[in-house]
Amino acid sequence: MSHPGATPSDRHKVVIIGSGFGGLTAAKTLKRADVDIKLIARTTHHLFQPLLYQVATGIISEGEIAPATRVILRNQKNAQVLLGDVTGIDLQTKTVRSELLGHTYVTPFDSLIVAAGAGQSYFGNDHFAEWAPGMKSIDDALELRGRILGAFEQAERSSDPARREKLLTFVVVGAGPTGVEMAGQIAELADHTLKGAFRHIDSTKARVILLDAAPAVLPPMGEKLGKKAQARLEKLGVEIQLNAMVTDVDRNGITVKDPDGTIRRIEAACKVWSAGVSASPLGRDLAEGSGVELDRAGRVKVLADLSLPGHPNVFVVGDMAAVEGVPGMAQGAIQGGKYAAKAIAAGLKGADPTEREPFKYFDKGSMATVSRFSAVAKIGPLEFEGFVAWLAWLVLHLVYLVGFKTKIVTLLSWTVTFLSTKRGQLTITEQQAYARTRIEELEEIAASVQETERAAS
Amino acid sequence: MSHPGATPSDRHKVVIIGSGFGGLTAAKTLKRADVDIKLIARTTHHLFQPLLYQVATGIISEGEIAPATRVILRNQKNAQVLLGDVTGIDLQTKTVRSELLGHTYVTPFDSLIVAAGAGQSYFGNDHFAEWAPGMKSIDDALELRGRILGAFEQAERSSDPARREKLLTFVVVGAGPTGVEMAGQIAELADHTLKGAFRHIDSTKARVILLDAAPAVLPPMGEKLGKKAQARLEKLGVEIQLNAMVTDVDRNGITVKDPDGTIRRIEAACKVWSAGVSASPLGRDLAEGSGVELDRAGRVKVLADLSLPGHPNVFVVGDMAAVEGVPGMAQGAIQGGKYAAKAIAAGLKGADPTEREPFKYFDKGSMATVSRFSAVAKIGPLEFEGFVAWLAWLVLHLVYLVGFKTKIVTLLSWTVTFLSTKRGQLTITEQQAYARTRIEELEEIAASVQETERAAS
Repeated sequence: MSHPGATPSDRHKVVIIGSGFGGLTAAKTLKRADVDIKLIARTTHHLFQPLLYQVATGIISEGEIAPATRVILRNQKNAQVLLGDVTGIDLQTKTVRSELLGHTYVTPFDSLIVAAGAGQSYFGNDHFAEWAPGMKSIDDALELRGRILGAFEQAERSSDPARREKLLTFVVVGAGPTGVEMAGQIAELADHTLKGAFRHIDSTKARVILLDAAPAVLPPMGEKLGKKAQARLEKLGVEIQLNAMVTDVDRNGITVKDPDGTIRRIEAACKVWSAGVSASPLGRDLAEGSGVELDRAGRVKVLADLSLPGHPNVFVVGDMAAVEGVPGMAQGAIQGGKYAAKAIAAGLKGADPTEREPFKYFDKGSMATVSRFSAVAKIGPLEFEGFVAWLAWLVLHLVYLVGFKTKIVTLLSWTVTFLSTKRGQLTITEQQAYARTRIEELEEIAASVQETERAAS
Repeated sequence: MSHPGATPSDRHKVVIIGSGFGGLTAAKTLKRADVDIKLIARTTHHLFQPLLYQVATGIISEGEIAPATRVILRNQKNAQVLLGDVTGIDLQTKTVRSELLGHTYVTPFDSLIVAAGAGQSYFGNDHFAEWAPGMKSIDDALELRGRILGAFEQAERSSDPARREKLLTFVVVGAGPTGVEMAGQIAELADHTLKGAFRHIDSTKARVILLDAAPAVLPPMGEKLGKKAQARLEKLGVEIQLNAMVTDVDRNGITVKDPDGTIRRIEAACKVWSAGVSASPLGRDLAEGSGVELDRAGRVKVLADLSLPGHPNVFVVGDMAAVEGVPGMAQGAIQGGKYAAKAIAAGLKGADPTEREPFKYFDKGSMATVSRFSAVAKIGPLEFEGFVAWLAWLVLHLVYLVGFKTKIVTLLSWTVTFLSTKRGQLTITEQQAYARTRIEELEEIAASVQETERAAS
């Protein structure tokens, strides 16, 4: 591509941090702009996070929801994708620092879009993470797949009833969409997919507990839909414990405080955390550099045009941005990314940053699948539930998946899973199956039991 | 299932070690036998090893070639699948010892089928393994996927030409079927799939070197087919170095000794080892217990009926067994597993073990794909190559894949990859992308370079 009169380094440099919904949309929106885009991300893929729970529960493969970012942007010649963990943003020198395997890179920018997303928040109890992984990355999903299926495997071999019960108790903390979907899918995995595949245990007897400190399931969907989702989950056998505050998580279970002050214990080997999010720590660099405030979740309190005070060409979008009325969902990031990209493109054509229209979020609604054939959806004032909502969920998610072949494969996976209850991606690596060997071996060595297998019944 | 007159523990106990071709076939063959089968394996899946290279190079997902063993055997009520790493076989007490996450299990048997397969052999240089992983498990394949794609990612960010060249040099050691297939697929990945996806490097300039100490490519396929495969690989741009002995492997490359005694160095970040196999160390327990001999590759020199001397109900099948004329391929294990299972079933009906017909291997031929639309195949005296062989390869592998949906998904993946050169499974986890951070960081910290990104060209 030749740009008469402009050597590459003359062009306006746009750095985008993050390859999620916000970052990828921003890059694509700048497709025809005369800019040099560098998209720096810590993963090589664009993650379609809403289906992560299906990777964790063996329905689809990681490739279906995590296509390589550089392949998506292959034909957009003004964009370069760079792998690296961004460790610093310097607003004074206008540079971004990133690291990759011992090498540090400094990337200058004229405009910056920070879309680094959010991680799981343990509300100050980061030691919970080891025993209750979050659901934020492909690594998390595959790790949880290993833990969920591994718990059944261990239970099949155990002759100790208490240990078996602990292994067959699954606790999902956080009754938002991800928690609801995880709990529902673990229950269906145990009740249908794995039914009859064990000889010593009955997978359908597994307990799945969905727990939240809040008094309702799916609070943002409103009371009616929340109750519907709750009823549907309970029909699946999921135990719902609301108003229950987690006070500790350890290897063997969790400790919970009920509203009346009672402290109780749930013995459970496998725990999933989907209770809260905490924005990328890069927000702190932005706060230091510009004086902008962060909210309690670490999100940046950007101006109405998503920029930083005093830095009209530095934007924060998606889960990292605190904007009134914009939920931490894909649509918030997509619309924010598009807005910021358009503002940059307009600036190149001479638009005055002080005259930008403020960012307006268009609410396209939200939805959560509870189980096969059942979902809840809220689109503006309209509320749907059951099969109709599930069908809408299915079509929408297929449309948003990247790539034609992926859509077909995913549709096929869903057809098989939803009609026959089989799942095609139950594979766990040895690393996942034995990951905790070192820690557990040390802990269990004292208690190590030599068991003699009984005959299968 | 009720067995009149027989409580479970009365039934003949068959223990099968391994869930590969040999172990799974043995279990299935015993479907109607009045036995209690315990299949103990260190992975939860049955691995279709011949397509492992396609997982490593992003064509198919791990789920397609590694279905859960217990789901395959779900309806075979006389079989129980147990996860565990078998660490000992005691022929005197007739027990198998296995371990899972700090727990030790002792499983008694009346008959035993040992089908634990083989690992990669580094011919006494086990320290090569860290820098040149083998191609034996899903873990290996995903690790290599991370290393191959990770090398391109690192090269894209590097401004040091020597480092970039090192990162863009891929060495496959061992020119057997796996080595040929890996080299061919890395070349096609670089030349087609990744073409145009980078800005700073040209992926089509990557060097792929296939290296072997032997004087020929694919020696068991004969000279003519070997030469054909070699010519096809060279057309793909793969450099073939024969009679080249690897004397060292380290982080930055390999050291090679040529026949004239010259020692030379190939700088390469990513190395793959497919040069030799070494049977499971469980063979040693069998040798100690029965006095049977092991060959140089650690394989057990079983009797003509695949049993151990003095232990007519202990069989060794597949890659662990040294049997004249039986190659270390899927068919050898499948036929051996079936034979051993039938011998056990016959014994239950009163057959005299001393009168068993010896195991006879039926050679169904062998094949290797070199690249899309091109393979070599040898079936008895017949030799095929090119498109016809490739078509035969495709149909045969589809037939042998487990599960109808898997066949469709894989066919779809192949259609896309072979026609459009796209690949749907290029996803690498953060663990794989940054796995070597700690080692490399320590090693590179002194040499750590702070680089300033230049504009994309």
